Amino acid sequence: MAKELTSMSENYSQWYNDLVVKADLAENSAVRGCMVIKPYGYAIWEKMQAQLDKMFKETGHVNAYFPLFIPKSFFSKEAAHVEGFAKECAVVTHYRLKNDEDGNGIVVDPDAKLEEELIVRPTSETIIWNTYKNWIQSWRDLPILCNQWANVVRWEMRTRLFLRTAEFLWQEGHTAHATKEEAIEETYKMVNVYADFAEKYMAVPVIKGHKSENERFAGALDTLCIEALMQDGKALQAGTSHFLGQNFAKAFDVQFANKEGKLEHVWASSWGVSTRLMGALVMAHSDDNGLVLPPKLAPFQVVVVPIYKKDEQLSQISEKVEAIIEKLRAKGISVKYDDSDAKKPGWKFAEYELKGVPVRLAIGPRDIENGTVEVARRDLLSKEVVNMDGIDDYIENLLDDIQSSIYKKAFDYRADRTTEVDTWDEFKDVLNTKGGFISAHWDGSPETEQKIKEETKATIRCIPLDAKEEEGKCIYTGKPSNKRVLFAIAY
Amino acid sequence: MAKELTSMSENYSQWYNDLVVKADLAENSAVRGCMVIKPYGYAIWEKMQAQLDKMFKETGHVNAYFPLFIPKSFFSKEAAHVEGFAKECAVVTHYRLKNDEDGNGIVVDPDAKLEEELIVRPTSETIIWNTYKNWIQSWRDLPILCNQWANVVRWEMRTRLFLRTAEFLWQEGHTAHATKEEAIEETYKMVNVYADFAEKYMAVPVIKGHKSENERFAGALDTLCIEALMQDGKALQAGTSHFLGQNFAKAFDVQFANKEGKLEHVWASSWGVSTRLMGALVMAHSDDNGLVLPPKLAPFQVVVVPIYKKDEQLSQISEKVEAIIEKLRAKGISVKYDDSDAKKPGWKFAEYELKGVPVRLAIGPRDIENGTVEVARRDLLSKEVVNMDGIDDYIENLLDDIQSSIYKKAFDYRADRTTEVDTWDEFKDVLNTKGGFISAHWDGSPETEQKIKEETKATIRCIPLDAKEEEGKCIYTGKPSNKRVLFAIAY
Repeated sequence: MAKELTSMSENYSQWYNDLVVKADLAENSAVRGCMVIKPYGYAIWEKMQAQLDKMFKETGHVNAYFPLFIPKSFFSKEAAHVEGFAKECAVVTHYRLKNDEDGNGIVVDPDAKLEEELIVRPTSETIIWNTYKNWIQSWRDLPILCNQWANVVRWEMRTRLFLRTAEFLWQEGHTAHATKEEAIEETYKMVNVYADFAEKYMAVPVIKGHKSENERFAGALDTLCIEALMQDGKALQAGTSHFLGQNFAKAFDVQFANKEGKLEHVWASSWGVSTRLMGALVMAHSDDNGLVLPPKLAPFQVVVVPIYKKDEQLSQISEKVEAIIEKLRAKGISVKYDDSDAKKPGWKFAEYELKGVPVRLAIGPRDIENGTVEVARRDLLSKEVVNMDGIDDYIENLLDDIQSSIYKKAFDYRADRTTEVDTWDEFKDVLNTKGGFISAHWDGSPETEQKIKEETKATIRCIPLDAKEEEGKCIYTGKPSNKRVLFAIAY
Repeated sequence: MAKELTSMSENYSQWYNDLVVKADLAENSAVRGCMVIKPYGYAIWEKMQAQLDKMFKETGHVNAYFPLFIPKSFFSKEAAHVEGFAKECAVVTHYRLKNDEDGNGIVVDPDAKLEEELIVRPTSETIIWNTYKNWIQSWRDLPILCNQWANVVRWEMRTRLFLRTAEFLWQEGHTAHATKEEAIEETYKMVNVYADFAEKYMAVPVIKGHKSENERFAGALDTLCIEALMQDGKALQAGTSHFLGQNFAKAFDVQFANKEGKLEHVWASSWGVSTRLMGALVMAHSDDNGLVLPPKLAPFQVVVVPIYKKDEQLSQISEKVEAIIEKLRAKGISVKYDDSDAKKPGWKFAEYELKGVPVRLAIGPRDIENGTVEVARRDLLSKEVVNMDGIDDYIENLLDDIQSSIYKKAFDYRADRTTEVDTWDEFKDVLNTKGGFISAHWDGSPETEQKIKEETKATIRCIPLDAKEEEGKCIYTGKPSNKRVLFAIAY
């Protein structure tokens, strides 16, 4: 009856892919590595965007738009950045096609070669700092607090829907400040915004921390991140906020006259989240029956399915349903009434379970007689019969309860899958048997991190902001360490 | 004091460019033909987007996202489309850069040549219909009513900010229907949505009509459009809605089983508006002092400037202003209070005039004594002193009045600049002396239209939907015609 999903326990990766495709979130396109985001998936992304955009504006940011293309030479200006970003990318070399003289359709016109190749932006620091150069003369022009909603392209070899695609949608904030302190403050402010969003809207608990040097953004002095744990025990980096120091200001010669009239280089931050959040949302909560969506991001929060045999029953039911819908909408609750006769109720139940609609109401002739409604909650797959009077208050509370329950479930799962270890054997053992986050001492060196990665595939996900001072010994080298860091195998 | 603008009468084109740059709407970027949309300009575009998106959803549409890249071969599948779109475009030929062995920075890696070149989308019919093929099996899968907000690239040789840029932002609706009638109905529905938006929000009156064959979208059977008149007497195409027949369904083999189980090709429409609307908005209303924005699209509708000498005066004023702002915000009116002491009131007045803020309030010590406010309206550059009591209602009405006044002004201008002519001499004379829309008979042939264009630069902007049947003779060939069409020189 329902579209078949591979079960999580059988093959987690296949389960994820089945779910994304069958719940109509996204699919692969004819273009290698590029996805089509389908209307149901895009509706969730729109809700994410709207909330994030609101939070950005509340923290003083404005939106702008910068070019899709970046001249190749711009990448060479910041040494670390070029290594990180200008390698696997889409390169525009020509600006015209023409009819082939031999009749083989259309071909690239060799006469239309660009003088300098253009790179489809993998991230926009370079083009934006080249622009900021003209916007900034004095301390009065600072800070600049711009965000951009855009598509970016990174030529990934192995792609997975939402998690790693050649083209993806994201937002990138790029801020310019007069002082180092202010730029650092901004970097922290935005990682906090991301964490709030993940926890309060996506219902995904996250750990805030610093990236180690190995995992830092190419061109940053410090990268803050939020890390989430998926139900297969792997970590997923869900957002990053970078303190860029004066690197890009120096690379693009962006200086400002300070209050004393002296020229100084500008300080920078950048921060971003992407459609990857969709992957995190799917993997954090869903089950073998399909998606489980937090009410705050569900395209519709309630679906109503009429159960009837005769048309006159349907019209009686519809009348009651309209009244309920009106009351729910008055509370700002989004509702879909599926009275189509093309599908049976059982098919609809399975379909809306697959799509993760938080609450399902079913109303049949007996409910009309008794003044009741059958209410099913998606997260627990539980049902109860509820009085129609006060159903709007009931559902309002239920949605709040679902939002907090799925957060709590994810939080408890993470707590259960976070293990403190003190020896290398224990580290390997926990990683192989239990997975999840491993809290362990590390000697702080990139070489040690690299060796651990080579031997176990685990990386340092972050050095938690709230890590407490604690004397210990590196699990790998035995050298002294003063705080624990979080390791995991990551997406 | 103010940033200098070239006057409209001196050089309209320079005036436009000055205004776009100096009012902080947009600027040219380091990438040929690509613009940077600055925060103030982007804030207007966001308001346009939000309203259009609402109107699309109210008419049953959903958003989705399709790939930025289109395989070259897709363009060859629809014969007319390839001629129109696959010529001047950005072509991605490689997917990797590498460090030059001779130390010349980074170069394109010749080993990373794509098997098939990818075109940066100039419009998405081909990739979308290739996707729809998998979404459509039976009549139950129809209609599909998708819209996409995206960036597109057309390699224009001569570019102008907003009006014609290599990269621009737009929305493109792509719908699929079971019947010809339904697809045609959709085409009309959307041109009506565009006209409503232009008139009610942008305050720009438009003429709805059909494009002639010469001006039709490449691949369409019929193109509907909205045409607006700018203050220099030139026309601007502000939105188009295309009936695509079964052309793309045939090119991409998209068939559905109808209710009788017989396979048929799907019927299509597509429709779009772009950041070009920003150009129309600027040129329709602004003057030598700067932008004039319709209240419904202004990033902020009211600016308040305190006039003071001593700090204690400022605190008295600020107290009153806060109370006013609270009342205005309660009515949904957006307000900015500019109490910065870095600039003098005169500078601020000029700046907000340049930026087209619909209403300016100025409050000084005498106003505090008298319980008054000075209210200036941007469109008429008029001022009056108004009692502080009831100022919120006063401003609410004033904003409505400004919205309708600027529409009426543009409407009257267009009426004045629309001329019926019946002879070729008259046609040329009106075109040279008065410009604007010329309503004239035409024999219906592409050849005649082409000759008129070659001799005068005027094109047929549209065959108005409301054109009445009227016997006449083509102004150019004297052949019979049964309705008038609108000619103009266009952007």
